[in-house]
Amino acid sequence: MGSIKGDLLIYNSLRGEKLVFEPLKEGFVGLYVCGPTVYSNVHLGNCRTFISFDLVYRYLIHLGYKVRYVRNITDVGHLTDDADEGEDKIAKKARLEQLEPMEIVHQYTMDFHKVMEQFNAISPNIEPTATGHIIEQIEMIQAILDNGFAYESNGSIYFDVEKYNETHPYGELSGRKIEDLIANTRDLDGQDEKRAPLDFALWKNAQPEHIMKWPSPWGIGFPGWHLECSAMSTKYLGEQFDIHGGGMDLKFPHHECEIAQGTASNGKSPVRYWMHGNMLTLNGKKMSKSTGNSLLPEELFSGENDLLDKSYDPMVVRFFMMQAHYRSTLDFTSEALGAAEKGYNKLMEAMKSLDEIVGGKEADSGQVKPIVDSFYSAMNDDFNAPVLLANLFEAVKLINSVKDGKASVSTEDLALLRKEMQAFVYDVLGLKAPGSEGDNRINPVMDLVLELRQQARTKKDWDTSDKIRDGLAAAGITVKDSKDGTSWN
Amino acid sequence: MGSIKGDLLIYNSLRGEKLVFEPLKEGFVGLYVCGPTVYSNVHLGNCRTFISFDLVYRYLIHLGYKVRYVRNITDVGHLTDDADEGEDKIAKKARLEQLEPMEIVHQYTMDFHKVMEQFNAISPNIEPTATGHIIEQIEMIQAILDNGFAYESNGSIYFDVEKYNETHPYGELSGRKIEDLIANTRDLDGQDEKRAPLDFALWKNAQPEHIMKWPSPWGIGFPGWHLECSAMSTKYLGEQFDIHGGGMDLKFPHHECEIAQGTASNGKSPVRYWMHGNMLTLNGKKMSKSTGNSLLPEELFSGENDLLDKSYDPMVVRFFMMQAHYRSTLDFTSEALGAAEKGYNKLMEAMKSLDEIVGGKEADSGQVKPIVDSFYSAMNDDFNAPVLLANLFEAVKLINSVKDGKASVSTEDLALLRKEMQAFVYDVLGLKAPGSEGDNRINPVMDLVLELRQQARTKKDWDTSDKIRDGLAAAGITVKDSKDGTSWN
Repeated sequence: MGSIKGDLLIYNSLRGEKLVFEPLKEGFVGLYVCGPTVYSNVHLGNCRTFISFDLVYRYLIHLGYKVRYVRNITDVGHLTDDADEGEDKIAKKARLEQLEPMEIVHQYTMDFHKVMEQFNAISPNIEPTATGHIIEQIEMIQAILDNGFAYESNGSIYFDVEKYNETHPYGELSGRKIEDLIANTRDLDGQDEKRAPLDFALWKNAQPEHIMKWPSPWGIGFPGWHLECSAMSTKYLGEQFDIHGGGMDLKFPHHECEIAQGTASNGKSPVRYWMHGNMLTLNGKKMSKSTGNSLLPEELFSGENDLLDKSYDPMVVRFFMMQAHYRSTLDFTSEALGAAEKGYNKLMEAMKSLDEIVGGKEADSGQVKPIVDSFYSAMNDDFNAPVLLANLFEAVKLINSVKDGKASVSTEDLALLRKEMQAFVYDVLGLKAPGSEGDNRINPVMDLVLELRQQARTKKDWDTSDKIRDGLAAAGITVKDSKDGTSWN
Repeated sequence: MGSIKGDLLIYNSLRGEKLVFEPLKEGFVGLYVCGPTVYSNVHLGNCRTFISFDLVYRYLIHLGYKVRYVRNITDVGHLTDDADEGEDKIAKKARLEQLEPMEIVHQYTMDFHKVMEQFNAISPNIEPTATGHIIEQIEMIQAILDNGFAYESNGSIYFDVEKYNETHPYGELSGRKIEDLIANTRDLDGQDEKRAPLDFALWKNAQPEHIMKWPSPWGIGFPGWHLECSAMSTKYLGEQFDIHGGGMDLKFPHHECEIAQGTASNGKSPVRYWMHGNMLTLNGKKMSKSTGNSLLPEELFSGENDLLDKSYDPMVVRFFMMQAHYRSTLDFTSEALGAAEKGYNKLMEAMKSLDEIVGGKEADSGQVKPIVDSFYSAMNDDFNAPVLLANLFEAVKLINSVKDGKASVSTEDLALLRKEMQAFVYDVLGLKAPGSEGDNRINPVMDLVLELRQQARTKKDWDTSDKIRDGLAAAGITVKDSKDGTSWN
């Protein structure tokens, strides 16, 4: 694979540099991504992370790898603050809505699936749940206990960070020093079960009023949030696997704890390439429900939010997200989305033209290969989608020149361009043509309407052409005429 | 609730008669339905069962009940034959496709969700998985062991049917006598772990090559198929709950075993109303993959199966299924589907007319209430959807008469008719108008096209009207003119 199209470089957060990707087993990739905590509708920031790793998954498949992609569903154990206290987020929502926690879990899992489908994100191969792997988590805790890296306290089990740090560098992923971490942590208040402030819960003793709880060798309780990803990635991808992804906000403590748990239970650092996606901001500020600077995917697709001027198609939003590299922050504004919409439409129009233009036997040859190579070099450079898009627009220029008769392309070149454009636009970037499903009858009907419009104009029948304009406006459709013909959105 | 619209009668398979439904807790209903074993694409027979119980769920909600609807996903432990041997269906498929079993599980769970959505079946409130409830199953087995109704043999645990039958009537649901069952069972072959042929596995000892297995007090193994529904219904609905549904083929042994397991573990018969849906046949014969007499939902919606003359919209198929009572067999044929399509279109056209007709102050009054009452009496009679449909078509007659000016309806009556027709057609039967999502722009555009067509005809501009006819035909749209106006499909 790598040999055909050049090496794939991945920025490994653990090393702080781009490294050539070498899978543990030739031809296979194990990919784990931290999924959502299903206690509310998935927000756009989360969506960006999942779409970023959807791109990674798609490109690995395009390169010919057989990928096992695991993305979990957190349905228990995620406390409302990052310390080992607070209420379980799902249990809290269940209490507020007077529902059984698993009703909350099911409702928001279904919502998450729907949103991912709208964004055309491919479902992972396995989507394990925390509650579905309590036994595996208990087994891992037992191994950590047996290896001396955890202790029991009042029916709870804590990971002994200082003990671990004696032999392994706790903080290596996030670049933190344990001395600084200790200095920045509040003192134990005497009521605490923990020996030291940095220690984190592997298992929490459940109070009687707790709903989500299971028996364990240490009494009735529930697993700590950090543990599930370690247990489930081990079960489905092995003690060591290729790529672990997640949002940057999970680097510390969540992923740091995953490294510690994996290493403490089986002596191996669990992940070879750590990848972290950057944040999405909204109008320059962090998204936050409490300040109102927040947007749900549904609001984006329907336009029902005062922060937006109009609605946007999920594919426009996906295109927008592809305009930034996954490791850069991305700011969501109406203006930026509007620009993305134009770019998306231009790309999709070129894809249509690509189907229509014809190659010539005597035409220029050899101009396509460098462009196609540039698609690969962009993506091989740590999945650089914005550079890929720029290179795709070089191809768009060529397509439009050929269409306008200002350039020509050989039959062979055209076949290559079609194959690779379709692969990169549809398969790798995961974009779909507008109206490519659901409203498939609208396209032939619109062809008819535009023909009638043209006929009316030719006859100077302005009444009819006005009627058509108004009728289409009522359907939310605008028509644009240019020298290349007539298009509609 | 019952008091307002009459009593709801449910045919209770356990009693063999229709009984007035009385929930355990006033205003609340616990509903459990056996879900799919996710080792292949869901077949139409399964779909019928799930759609039947979707109707039950929808009507209970319409009556004002707060329903907790639980439908499980069987993702381990369903052996390839009904005896306690054979291979796990999911593990077998995983072996054949060289995948991890949970990849099989995820793929077919997603397919199942998609098909259910196409059929407009509401997702249950909780969709628990067998692998997600191993601990709960182990706890239930322990309780059955403690109560003396099971025994260990070679690391497996079996339910002691004869012991149970000494104090409880095993076979009461399926109407079988234990003597006959014993007479019809093969003898133990000496290699068998079981004490008696009727005994069934609660836990199976796993061979080393087995992939799906968990630790238990009796060694490494996996739960028996019958157990999961008992453990999960108890967890989410309690030791005794209101309604348990499933296909008729599950009555014995699956549901019989559920009664025995629930009773043996906590002394109570677990279910108050057992409901069983009948089979779907295809061209008069049992559906079977091996004989080729089989049809997938996808093939039905796309028309890609030699047994079909064309494709059918999921809503037509749903309408078709509603034309039979859930306890009757239903035979799937192209002719019957074609007839259902006509009926569905007629009903949907009437729903459109219902929006357009106007009531008169001086108009006939009192003709709507008996019709609306008949909707309730049909559904209160054990969810009799075919009778409901017949009664809805009485309403259709009235609507069409008013539209044709042959009858009138008072403003008040019209408001009542609108409210209840919409409730029964959309909310209770779960039907949707064609093109009610996805291609929502087609309707206003078609309004425009039909206006242009009318204009061309008025002007005797046959070229244009021919052009419109051909353009619409290309989109698969036919236009029908009648004295009531022009319609299209």
